Amino acid sequence: MSGKYVPAYEKIAALLRTAIESGEIAPGGQLPAVRDLAARYEVTPGTVSRAVGRLQALGLVTTTRGGGIYVRGFEPIIRNSPGRLARDRWGTGATIQDADTGKRSRTVDVETGERVAPDWVAAPLGLADGAVAAFRSRRFVVEDRYVQLSVSWMPAELVRGTAIMHTDTGPGGMYARLAELGHAPATFVERVRTRMPTRDEEERLELLAGTPVFEITRHATTEAGRCVEVNRMTLDGRAYVLDYTFPA
Amino acid sequence: MSGKYVPAYEKIAALLRTAIESGEIAPGGQLPAVRDLAARYEVTPGTVSRAVGRLQALGLVTTTRGGGIYVRGFEPIIRNSPGRLARDRWGTGATIQDADTGKRSRTVDVETGERVAPDWVAAPLGLADGAVAAFRSRRFVVEDRYVQLSVSWMPAELVRGTAIMHTDTGPGGMYARLAELGHAPATFVERVRTRMPTRDEEERLELLAGTPVFEITRHATTEAGRCVEVNRMTLDGRAYVLDYTFPA
Repeated sequence: MSGKYVPAYEKIAALLRTAIESGEIAPGGQLPAVRDLAARYEVTPGTVSRAVGRLQALGLVTTTRGGGIYVRGFEPIIRNSPGRLARDRWGTGATIQDADTGKRSRTVDVETGERVAPDWVAAPLGLADGAVAAFRSRRFVVEDRYVQLSVSWMPAELVRGTAIMHTDTGPGGMYARLAELGHAPATFVERVRTRMPTRDEEERLELLAGTPVFEITRHATTEAGRCVEVNRMTLDGRAYVLDYTFPA
Repeated sequence: MSGKYVPAYEKIAALLRTAIESGEIAPGGQLPAVRDLAARYEVTPGTVSRAVGRLQALGLVTTTRGGGIYVRGFEPIIRNSPGRLARDRWGTGATIQDADTGKRSRTVDVETGERVAPDWVAAPLGLADGAVAAFRSRRFVVEDRYVQLSVSWMPAELVRGTAIMHTDTGPGGMYARLAELGHAPATFVERVRTRMPTRDEEERLELLAGTPVFEITRHATTEAGRCVEVNRMTLDGRAYVLDYTFPA
């Protein structure tokens, strides 16, 4: 935000956020009262209330009727594979994200369309250089917190005009729809990297400075060996534990 | 290093390292000659040579007979699961780390012994609070670069006096030995987190500032459902891509 005017409530929200995320005020702990914060930061109670509203929107605090402000805990999301992607789930209409420690997730900012596929998408999908692919982009929200960005890429001729291109893909989501189209995923490969976020990811996931992200690239391949989806996900590194179970 | 005297060659090594790791000098690219670097940094050629020696030790550059200094590429290690941990491998004497994109790894700084188990070890191993467990700690080196710290914890009475407590555990490593003892791992669970490194990890993995790590906690469980190993690994986040393959 350098060189840009930052309103007082944003500055106070940032200070309180740092105090919370550093653990200085622990989960379950109470913040000082609005009037005390107003005195400390030499602003009006109204400005403090706006800052608190900002923290509420970020899912960091809850307020009681009596005016108490409490730090919310955020237990990491356990993202369990292969369980969450088992055909037993999406094949029977379940939502993949709901497998993650039973946390309810909301899908927001869905965008779909067709676009020139980047190389790392075109190659596995078997598309020519510069060819167009269908994409489905969205953000996932858990407990009022942005936790994941996800963009799925699919062969355009496979999904054009289907529910996969709708905001709501229906029960079982896109894998259930791909199965109905005769292209059920049989194998998933997830490649997991960790890195610091880009500026854009930092903003879209509302990450605290110094939070790494997981970058997961998933290939969904049919029994016949055709890759029908390439999904690039960016996960808030503080929000997730990835859990992979496999036999010896 | 604040407050500590830093020799000139260390400062120059740090500057060159930043230029290399930021991509300013690309893999395969040539550094200026020693005499030019000496002039640029206003030090003797001997000091520059020491700095270059440091970069060589870190696996960042190679030198030619003619005196050329070249940036080494370091392709990320593809760590493929379940393949690398398949019984077909360790059951026939292969080394787990060697499955990782065929890169040769060396195990260094092996320490073994018995120690009070931390909670996250005692619970899965079924030990009482404050009980002692056997540990096996080591670092892994790939292409002259430290890439991973690893500490395995096992029930002490299971492995005391066995090759698992030796520096060299023999063909197939500790899983092959556990199998001989009648405790072959049948299932692995890996829980993957990402975070910024501790100061100690930063030093032991020689991480560039701003490099996140993977923290992987693996539980190895026998057919009978007994957890026989808890392994906590810290991986250089720039060195690894984790690859998990599983069915739908």
